[in-house]
Amino acid sequence: MTAPEQRVPKQDRSRITRERLLGASIDLLATQGWAATTVGAVAAAAGVSRGAAQHHFPTREDLITAALGHMIEQRISDVRRGGLDLPEPGPERTVAVVGFIVQHYTSDLFKAALHVWTAAASDPALRDRVLPLENHMSREVLAIAAAALGRDAGDVRVRRGLQTTLDLARGLGLADVLSDDSERRDKIVRFWAQTLDGVLVETPEWSTGDVANASF
Amino acid sequence: MTAPEQRVPKQDRSRITRERLLGASIDLLATQGWAATTVGAVAAAAGVSRGAAQHHFPTREDLITAALGHMIEQRISDVRRGGLDLPEPGPERTVAVVGFIVQHYTSDLFKAALHVWTAAASDPALRDRVLPLENHMSREVLAIAAAALGRDAGDVRVRRGLQTTLDLARGLGLADVLSDDSERRDKIVRFWAQTLDGVLVETPEWSTGDVANASF
Repeated sequence: MTAPEQRVPKQDRSRITRERLLGASIDLLATQGWAATTVGAVAAAAGVSRGAAQHHFPTREDLITAALGHMIEQRISDVRRGGLDLPEPGPERTVAVVGFIVQHYTSDLFKAALHVWTAAASDPALRDRVLPLENHMSREVLAIAAAALGRDAGDVRVRRGLQTTLDLARGLGLADVLSDDSERRDKIVRFWAQTLDGVLVETPEWSTGDVANASF
Repeated sequence: MTAPEQRVPKQDRSRITRERLLGASIDLLATQGWAATTVGAVAAAAGVSRGAAQHHFPTREDLITAALGHMIEQRISDVRRGGLDLPEPGPERTVAVVGFIVQHYTSDLFKAALHVWTAAASDPALRDRVLPLENHMSREVLAIAAAALGRDAGDVRVRRGLQTTLDLARGLGLADVLSDDSERRDKIVRFWAQTLDGVLVETPEWSTGDVANASF
């Protein structure tokens, strides 16, 4: 009756259980795929009873969309709080920003999301839940990148250049699930950063200040 | 005893059965996903007995990798035979070539392949079978694109530019499974074609002749 978890307030215990389930969902998705990521399997991986898991998340779709949403929010707020630790404005900064985006799309979060997107391709109800998360994430990544490059995301060429970067990063992330092609990927990142610089040079600068560690 | 199929030579019947199974696999994969694409389900969709299907393809992995390989070969040989029906050399030709690559990665064949890649992400044995198919396809698409643009695929900037196009197309294909974003995609295709032209202008021309309908 005096087990340590009983001294934690009920509300906190509930939050901890929830976060454990969300983290275990992403891990399981990224490593085992959609079919293996059931509420039961996630509960077992998180060391939570199946009943408690189902209390928080009645269906697998509830659990998985909550997990994706939570991880995306966490990632974005980490970047917004901590900044990107970028080099001085110039070609190397563009390489770093493109590298940040590509890293984002080759992370475990992306691998988890890929399994969900692929499942959603043949499941319209799931697609309706996943699409707003993906749109939100893309908008945020694009805004972060524009600010880091000191460019106005409202400018059509800036937006197009950064959208292309996101699409490219998504494609590089997809290639990465089949084989470790990080060497080739680094070359594409440098090539694209150089090309993007050529595109952005014709666009208005948004801020000439150092935005490397600014809050976005 | 005189049913029409009995008049078809045995070897042809076997080939027809095989091709029906391969086609049904791609259809099922693209529309229903990996989990639904079992040998039994494909046999039923193709109107072939389960026994006959298993005679041709003992396991699901055999069937699905054969289907992907067959469709890739067919697609490549269609292009190599028929050419791409491209506009005169110039900016519009680049738009058409980029459009061809992007179309390839938003086709049903890509959607089928996406389900297989995603399944392969957590299945090393499947990955080993799928990776050579993907590498082969990428090399062929890259060679076709270089020839169509009259550029030397051996040149490092040409190769990098076209690899980027393939990665970008893969990313656009992935976005397409979540929502029909063809309008946005068309803008990215034009933007990237224009950017690619800027990259290629610095590279040696491979052939100044009309390669639009040449065999590659």
